[in-house]
Amino acid sequence: MDYPNDQAPGAPVRQGIPEHGRIPKYYAVKARLDQLIGRLGEGDPLPTERDLSEEYEVARETVRQAIRELVLEGKLRRQGRGTVVAGPKLEQPLSLASYTEGVRRQGRTPGRTLVTLDRFPCPAALAAEAGLERGEPVWHLERVLLADDERVGLESTYVAVARVPRLDVDFDPDSSFYAFLHRHGIGFGDADERIETVLATPREALLIGTPPALPMLLIHRISRDTEGRPLERVRSLYRGDRFSFSTHLRG
Amino acid sequence: MDYPNDQAPGAPVRQGIPEHGRIPKYYAVKARLDQLIGRLGEGDPLPTERDLSEEYEVARETVRQAIRELVLEGKLRRQGRGTVVAGPKLEQPLSLASYTEGVRRQGRTPGRTLVTLDRFPCPAALAAEAGLERGEPVWHLERVLLADDERVGLESTYVAVARVPRLDVDFDPDSSFYAFLHRHGIGFGDADERIETVLATPREALLIGTPPALPMLLIHRISRDTEGRPLERVRSLYRGDRFSFSTHLRG
Repeated sequence: MDYPNDQAPGAPVRQGIPEHGRIPKYYAVKARLDQLIGRLGEGDPLPTERDLSEEYEVARETVRQAIRELVLEGKLRRQGRGTVVAGPKLEQPLSLASYTEGVRRQGRTPGRTLVTLDRFPCPAALAAEAGLERGEPVWHLERVLLADDERVGLESTYVAVARVPRLDVDFDPDSSFYAFLHRHGIGFGDADERIETVLATPREALLIGTPPALPMLLIHRISRDTEGRPLERVRSLYRGDRFSFSTHLRG
Repeated sequence: MDYPNDQAPGAPVRQGIPEHGRIPKYYAVKARLDQLIGRLGEGDPLPTERDLSEEYEVARETVRQAIRELVLEGKLRRQGRGTVVAGPKLEQPLSLASYTEGVRRQGRTPGRTLVTLDRFPCPAALAAEAGLERGEPVWHLERVLLADDERVGLESTYVAVARVPRLDVDFDPDSSFYAFLHRHGIGFGDADERIETVLATPREALLIGTPPALPMLLIHRISRDTEGRPLERVRSLYRGDRFSFSTHLRG
């Protein structure tokens, strides 16, 4: 039995090929490309679609579909007119620490670009979720998240204006919001997070610079301060092809 | 300003529509269907593609693409020849507790179907990851995960044969592996988990009964017993349209 001795334990069993052996043509190409990627290094160019379709004796559209999926999964990335081998996914810890800290810990430089900063009366849905008063003024801070100048995510933070009245004048949007809160004497106590996968909307794809309908990791966070009072509601969207999240569990 | 007062804080900003207002036609249809879904209840049928394409004055292929994305995201599901409104995603805690416990806590009945049980010499990659000896016998237990008889995931567990020598005779595959370990005096100490999104392979799609290339949530787990010794390496794949994972974070 040659299975599964030769494969990584994190990889799909039998390389994803059904027992009956009938596999879609594009997937057979994808499996071969996956092996090719394993032999290449980060940033190495893939042969052209034309060369691949000749070598594998399939239509160019078949090669294209295989490459499309490998791009969505973050194993390849587009570069100019070509396609190159992507680096490993960034591994961000699920923790109260900020995005900034998590990215730094991986030796990358975090950045953020402001998309939106506005204030409005707290809507009913937000009030119920975040323990705020309906109609009280809230800030909405929306930023694109960067790692080494690469756009990797989009974050919406909702926080009561009463908490940080001068957010619009005192806060540098390209800095850590958590460091800002800390300087204002507000500390994090605990948070509830929920993680799911969604497809990027056209607006999100545009802001982050991803293909539309790229699978994303969406993290919902509701955090409280050290006194247990509601602090913020955050919606963080991360490129599914560039991020994974890790956690340590104890009994 | 009508935004974002009327929307849920977990929803995309501006319903995903870019500021320049140029949105793909299928996405405009998707946004309208999303509102329609909000007014309908779980299990309610969607109007036919033909009726929708007439009402929205778009091609049927445009309606089809919108529905396809809403199915991938778990807001709609296929039922027979039609499409109905799906229920909310199951929310599973990220914890040392088993799949069984998590599903029960949500009032659903967990189940598992055996796909594979085999033993083989521990390959190098698994040995390095799970702290086992290369070549020592390991079990590979692969099961489809069920919730209320619905197939929702696929789990591969790798564990040293020395730990549970009679796994093949003593263990009922449609029961909790953790309860089995517990009965054999093996307790969980801690685990490292990593969560990412991947596309279902053809084999996985077949086993779980999902459309191919459905975005999945993949959880890698390496767990240790109460003495800190390596215990198991698990690869758990969950339907991205049916699951979300939650965690509580402390400072």
